[in-house]
Amino acid sequence: MSAMAFVSITPLGEGESVSEYVARAVRVIKNSGLEWRLTPMGTIIEGENTAAVLGVVNSAVEELGDCNRISVSIKIDYRRGREAGMSRKVESVMEKIDL
Amino acid sequence: MSAMAFVSITPLGEGESVSEYVARAVRVIKNSGLEWRLTPMGTIIEGENTAAVLGVVNSAVEELGDCNRISVSIKIDYRRGREAGMSRKVESVMEKIDL
Amino acid sequence: MSAMAFVSITPLGEGESVSEYVARAVRVIKNSGLEWRLTPMGTIIEGENTAAVLGVVNSAVEELGDCNRISVSIKIDYRRGREAGMSRKVESVMEKIDL
Amino acid sequence: MSAMAFVSITPLGEGESVSEYVARAVRVIKNSGLEWRLTPMGTIIEGENTAAVLGVVNSAVEELGDCNRISVSIKIDYRRGREAGMSRKVESVMEKIDL
Repeated sequence: MSAMAFVSITPLGEGESVSEYVARAVRVIKNSGLEWRLTPMGTIIEGENTAAVLGVVNSAVEELGDCNRISVSIKIDYRRGREAGMSRKVESVMEKIDL
Repeated sequence: MSAMAFVSITPLGEGESVSEYVARAVRVIKNSGLEWRLTPMGTIIEGENTAAVLGVVNSAVEELGDCNRISVSIKIDYRRGREAGMSRKVESVMEKIDL
Repeated sequence: MSAMAFVSITPLGEGESVSEYVARAVRVIKNSGLEWRLTPMGTIIEGENTAAVLGVVNSAVEELGDCNRISVSIKIDYRRGREAGMSRKVESVMEKIDL
Repeated sequence: MSAMAFVSITPLGEGESVSEYVARAVRVIKNSGLEWRLTPMGTIIEGENTAAVLGVVNSAVEELGDCNRISVSIKIDYRRGREAGMSRKVESVMEKIDL
């Protein structure tokens, strides 16, 4: 059983460049112990279930408690019978487009 | 302080029509006691903070525990200093487009 | 055949309150002639296909061409055999949760 | 000027495993000539503006025209003054979390 999530956390009202804030949120994700990957549009994390993943997302948002307004986008793929699927998911598509 | 979220929960592998499953998830949201509104593309809920909102989303996903695969999309607008902002947010835009 | 979309357009770097900008984008959607509904978390539009819907979203984003940075979230439900489904989608869930 | 997008395209009603369909959509993206990266939760593409990016997304969705129902999630980061920013965006966060 695994819940994989794409997460993007962005403060509003803190200026056009937000990488300082993103880095603080990603540090919380990194220290959570969950499998994680940073991408240009957000961070992908994988945990045993949605509760584990959403708990880490919440901690990362709370890390930015000094911000007045925060926008959070989360897309979750929960799947029974899958364990540690990040690499396997990419491979199963790459194989089919001959890369 | 309020966390407002747009939530869409969709099982994969349960056929093209998913309204039965969506209704089960929405019932959990309805019974949570949080402010909620059903829209054609998902449900909007509002709670005191992100932990309250994500807790209800997690319970709604767990309600579909009999599904092998579930896709969840969540967009959160967390804002300090706002209380029960659903109607106010819509009004503040409608006023500006003279409706 | 219908493509229904939830759309949220938010400028970054223009301050914490963005309703002025949201109103300008929604006005473009309103004047597009597509079916639309404003919600507290974004606007829902429906068109004949994804090209029609994405064309209007692009025009709404281009309306904010004076902003240096814009975040756009779009969730589309494309379905063959459905015409003007906004009300029907909500009713089909409400009936199942006895509301 | 660059528009970067996270895109996830998923057919409903075609079973629990959708990698065949995802591969067909990714092949359209790959052949579009835009910069692209496959991740475990979706594909990230970068083009000169939102029209270029949304045009490719639409072609990828139309590639799955044989599916009755398709769910599409898109998150766009449009930014003036940025060119080919994928690697730079990741580096600017990694530097700040000492990785």
